[in-house]
Amino acid sequence: MSERVLMTGNAATAEGAIAGGCRHFFGYPITPQSHIPERMSERLPQVGGVYLQAESEVAAINMCYGAAATGAKVMTTSSSPGVSLMQEGISYMYGAELPCVIVNMVRGGPGLGNIAAAQSDYWLSTRGGGHGDGQMLTYAPWSVQEVYDLTYESFDIALKYRAPVSILGDGILAQMMEPVRERAPLDPVYPQPEWAAGGERHGREKHVLTSIYIVPETLEALNHRLYARYAQAAREDLRWEEIGDDNPEILVCAYGISARVCQTAIEMAAARGVRARLLRPISLFPFPTAPIRAWAEKVRKILVVELSMGQFVEDVRLAVEGRCPVEFSGHTGGVLHTPEEVAGILGEL
Amino acid sequence: MSERVLMTGNAATAEGAIAGGCRHFFGYPITPQSHIPERMSERLPQVGGVYLQAESEVAAINMCYGAAATGAKVMTTSSSPGVSLMQEGISYMYGAELPCVIVNMVRGGPGLGNIAAAQSDYWLSTRGGGHGDGQMLTYAPWSVQEVYDLTYESFDIALKYRAPVSILGDGILAQMMEPVRERAPLDPVYPQPEWAAGGERHGREKHVLTSIYIVPETLEALNHRLYARYAQAAREDLRWEEIGDDNPEILVCAYGISARVCQTAIEMAAARGVRARLLRPISLFPFPTAPIRAWAEKVRKILVVELSMGQFVEDVRLAVEGRCPVEFSGHTGGVLHTPEEVAGILGEL
Amino acid sequence: MSERVLMTGNAATAEGAIAGGCRHFFGYPITPQSHIPERMSERLPQVGGVYLQAESEVAAINMCYGAAATGAKVMTTSSSPGVSLMQEGISYMYGAELPCVIVNMVRGGPGLGNIAAAQSDYWLSTRGGGHGDGQMLTYAPWSVQEVYDLTYESFDIALKYRAPVSILGDGILAQMMEPVRERAPLDPVYPQPEWAAGGERHGREKHVLTSIYIVPETLEALNHRLYARYAQAAREDLRWEEIGDDNPEILVCAYGISARVCQTAIEMAAARGVRARLLRPISLFPFPTAPIRAWAEKVRKILVVELSMGQFVEDVRLAVEGRCPVEFSGHTGGVLHTPEEVAGILGEL
Amino acid sequence: MSERVLMTGNAATAEGAIAGGCRHFFGYPITPQSHIPERMSERLPQVGGVYLQAESEVAAINMCYGAAATGAKVMTTSSSPGVSLMQEGISYMYGAELPCVIVNMVRGGPGLGNIAAAQSDYWLSTRGGGHGDGQMLTYAPWSVQEVYDLTYESFDIALKYRAPVSILGDGILAQMMEPVRERAPLDPVYPQPEWAAGGERHGREKHVLTSIYIVPETLEALNHRLYARYAQAAREDLRWEEIGDDNPEILVCAYGISARVCQTAIEMAAARGVRARLLRPISLFPFPTAPIRAWAEKVRKILVVELSMGQFVEDVRLAVEGRCPVEFSGHTGGVLHTPEEVAGILGEL
Repeated sequence: MSERVLMTGNAATAEGAIAGGCRHFFGYPITPQSHIPERMSERLPQVGGVYLQAESEVAAINMCYGAAATGAKVMTTSSSPGVSLMQEGISYMYGAELPCVIVNMVRGGPGLGNIAAAQSDYWLSTRGGGHGDGQMLTYAPWSVQEVYDLTYESFDIALKYRAPVSILGDGILAQMMEPVRERAPLDPVYPQPEWAAGGERHGREKHVLTSIYIVPETLEALNHRLYARYAQAAREDLRWEEIGDDNPEILVCAYGISARVCQTAIEMAAARGVRARLLRPISLFPFPTAPIRAWAEKVRKILVVELSMGQFVEDVRLAVEGRCPVEFSGHTGGVLHTPEEVAGILGEL
Repeated sequence: MSERVLMTGNAATAEGAIAGGCRHFFGYPITPQSHIPERMSERLPQVGGVYLQAESEVAAINMCYGAAATGAKVMTTSSSPGVSLMQEGISYMYGAELPCVIVNMVRGGPGLGNIAAAQSDYWLSTRGGGHGDGQMLTYAPWSVQEVYDLTYESFDIALKYRAPVSILGDGILAQMMEPVRERAPLDPVYPQPEWAAGGERHGREKHVLTSIYIVPETLEALNHRLYARYAQAAREDLRWEEIGDDNPEILVCAYGISARVCQTAIEMAAARGVRARLLRPISLFPFPTAPIRAWAEKVRKILVVELSMGQFVEDVRLAVEGRCPVEFSGHTGGVLHTPEEVAGILGEL
Repeated sequence: MSERVLMTGNAATAEGAIAGGCRHFFGYPITPQSHIPERMSERLPQVGGVYLQAESEVAAINMCYGAAATGAKVMTTSSSPGVSLMQEGISYMYGAELPCVIVNMVRGGPGLGNIAAAQSDYWLSTRGGGHGDGQMLTYAPWSVQEVYDLTYESFDIALKYRAPVSILGDGILAQMMEPVRERAPLDPVYPQPEWAAGGERHGREKHVLTSIYIVPETLEALNHRLYARYAQAAREDLRWEEIGDDNPEILVCAYGISARVCQTAIEMAAARGVRARLLRPISLFPFPTAPIRAWAEKVRKILVVELSMGQFVEDVRLAVEGRCPVEFSGHTGGVLHTPEEVAGILGEL
Repeated sequence: MSERVLMTGNAATAEGAIAGGCRHFFGYPITPQSHIPERMSERLPQVGGVYLQAESEVAAINMCYGAAATGAKVMTTSSSPGVSLMQEGISYMYGAELPCVIVNMVRGGPGLGNIAAAQSDYWLSTRGGGHGDGQMLTYAPWSVQEVYDLTYESFDIALKYRAPVSILGDGILAQMMEPVRERAPLDPVYPQPEWAAGGERHGREKHVLTSIYIVPETLEALNHRLYARYAQAAREDLRWEEIGDDNPEILVCAYGISARVCQTAIEMAAARGVRARLLRPISLFPFPTAPIRAWAEKVRKILVVELSMGQFVEDVRLAVEGRCPVEFSGHTGGVLHTPEEVAGILGEL
């Protein structure tokens, strides 16, 4: 088994991508994730890949569209404002059924905001991708190892569903260092997907990949095709983790960096006699509706802890549908919960 | 009382805006709403206003930012892909607390899709505005008269809350003609808001309007300020309409063009003995949570009819929280429900 | 007669433009001329004009194209790199026969260079305007008063010839202060040119202004039309000034800021017995070929002093065609000639 | 010796570039040269190169800047309006002393003009490269073989002088087919220039390549360095060809496609007793001043034939400086001289 290497979340994104077979990167720098493109610019030439800093995030996402259309494993990374600029392009990828990995190291918003950690792009990732129906498959790591692993796996998930996959991190995950166990590199040469453009050079028919569907019924069929894939993802690629009391009175729902705070808070509260359990969605879309709903039948209350004014909590409420009260604690703009703060809330619920 | 004038929804948008005091327009053409900028380009010079076709939607929304910062009544209009391109700019407006009217004549998506009518930008309008917390006050007209009225009123609502206001139409509303009763033009000259830039020319202090807030606590305070305004809007500017049976067994929730189909469907179903009532949100954000929740205690079922894969229905479910079953019927890509289709569903619920 | 007002060349550009009837400005800031757009942004709203800071110089020049097509008096201002970005747009103006005033406060080049004074955009102005045949009518002031006067007059020259007019200043002229006698403001309301678009609103036929000419003979006819106008300008709007000895042995050719240095140098050299005369072109295109050629028959030598590696000197050589030796002294990158330096050269010729 | 292969000038550009070691291409399609990027997009991946279609010509030239800074052999190709958009970027390359090959298949101008052949970008190529001092080394082929050869050689010339090299073709050369003898491919792996960025990965010091020179004397030194290289190019890489009567009364100066017409015209005129000689510059900058000047002492007249309103003719006049009369015949906008027409002029001189 390999040794573990100390690296930041930004570095883990780059290394996980390359090990996962990614050989194409297009992006534009923005704090707190500029170290990802910087590292990709150094690493990709070493492995025969293509790195290009685009003129803007609008240009970057459309270059991803082009590379994805050839069946390439392609990634862009950015932080909140940059992902906003990619919304049209992501929607075009839904429409053309193209795989791509989009990493968002979320910073405080709205607007320029600041470069501290936040979770306020939950909607942008799970509901976003701009206009029209279409949602981004979204995974939210809570450690540098998980940043590495999810990035590594996301390219094959994107290819499996012909869809963009979002890795939703934050400014802390991006910059903190933790030991990472690297995985065996996937072969960057793999069979070109049969739908990919360029097949005519390999003896296949010529493909045109577009998002124009003039006839309403054909466009509706596309949407049903996309949502059938989401349903498949909900069956096959749903991920969540549970930690804590097996007979809880309170279920704490939190993801990413907030879940780490909550884990400590639950331990602190347990010492004070509060029986709480952490349910941490790893996939935000598809969402672990069923396990949350099942716990809602058993616990007294659910507490949602989130670094936003209340986005993720809506999905929890949609899962619970009134089966038990859902309480919410949010911070924004780079303000973080302390374990003491959450433990205190748990003690008063 | 004035005579009624026959006009399209696109024309009503332009005329409602000018009567409402709008003197600045920045945009970029896209079907099915290109007649709005065309008409504004003709009308604004006549009333001493400024019309400018920008290089792109990205440019347009940032020009709106600039004009809004001076306290001007400013509008941009587009259709789905164009509004995606505006997401970063809208988020910057949240952050700088700027008023603006953003009209979206929604077309079939995702991607280029087609130019038929759709309602699949519900999230883009109510949850969108890009990254970070912040939501767009959203009004959804169902007639050309209401397009006119809501556009007319939206500038003052935007100024009242220092926030972008979205008018969410669709490709049918944009192009169909109906008689409109025009309203008395508001005075385009009004006191410059005290927060506006440029005040130093009028003997006030110099203002800088930006969305950068380096200190997390200050950015968090901004978000609380924004959400306090949304709470005020929920008290003072919430709008909905109810039509149909006063003792219904089924509540139909639909907005915009879908609500018109549902109104006919309810009449057809009534003739077959089905007691149904239409609740039509006019403001989508703020959302008429309370009235829907109240009906959920009384009816047997709620049916949501919507031209998307299921966006608006989530807000209905969040209002209902399991109080009664919520059924959903959606079409996408320009396919419309027929009244017969909805009446049929009502008969089988 | 009005009092004289102390102002910078940048301010004189803005005030000259407004007095000359300009009511539309599109631009993008760049040192050393950013005070022009800043002043226009303050002044234009006061006189009912339109100021817009574009997304880039590419956007700015195309906005000028649009405004010019309506017959408006429109200006953009920039410095060297920004004018390079406008080259395509200027060529389109040639092709569509559109008037526009383009001010270039030249800085040290090539590339980003620096923000000191230079005259190395002589070709960019007289030969530039991008691809294809077409040259910019170019006027080069040597004082703040002349900056004011030439800008004031350039809008009517542009309209007269349906062509872009360039005012070629430099970083020193832009920022130095001198007293200026302002002129009576021209009426900003004037008859719309008969070729302008928008005439259909005034009972005329609809015009399309474009630079596409598919048939070669038609495009050739356009070029002959443009060059006939240049010939007319050479007859009617050629300008130059001569100062110094009426029976010179040396003719000094210099323009703009360099001519000021040469004037002093000639006085210094005269004190040492050198009979020199300054010929200062005010219009660089059309070029004062005839007077230079006439002097070339009489003087012993011609000295060209210029802040470039040798651009203006080529036009002098084309005028002289070997009639007498043409010597050259150039500096670049913001280095200036001193009067002593030029006087020294004069003494050794 | 290899067989000859029939190909268009566009194809010869692509094949010459790849054989010359070019492995990086950035561009944007425009008629009549879109077949170059199309072919590069197919060929470069086959040889391990990078092809990228940029968002615009502005983006393309700046990508070339980036690749060139690493010492890569990089090319962009376009036609007239596209090259105008590259002017700022080319000037930045002068300033940063970067090699690049820029192919311009000139079309009729100004503006959009048309897609027929023209030679009206002579100034844009030899004087252009935007603002500031700096000129493009320019080679003008007159056959498909020469398109191939000059493109093949241009990358090493660009590296030799650390400067952009322009290949100036036209719409006819781009699309006509002729047999081409291909040359042995140069090794795409070559020692990275010592000035290149990225050297720190190879054990060298870190380089920053920029065009900012704040101190005027330093910027002036850069310009002297650039012009010293031009002087070296005039000694070592000047090219021209002479054909026809060894004791001519008339010297015909023409380049590129016009020279082919003139060659036939001279033969026709010879049959009528006119002794004429063709001097065809292959390098336009550096310009064959000396040979033209030498002939000017011997011939009765010089005729310049050119597809423009008179650009190349200025360089001939600057070489001749009045030693003999210089006559001019120009066509524009895609109109071509016929051999009969030129022969007729020759007969009447």
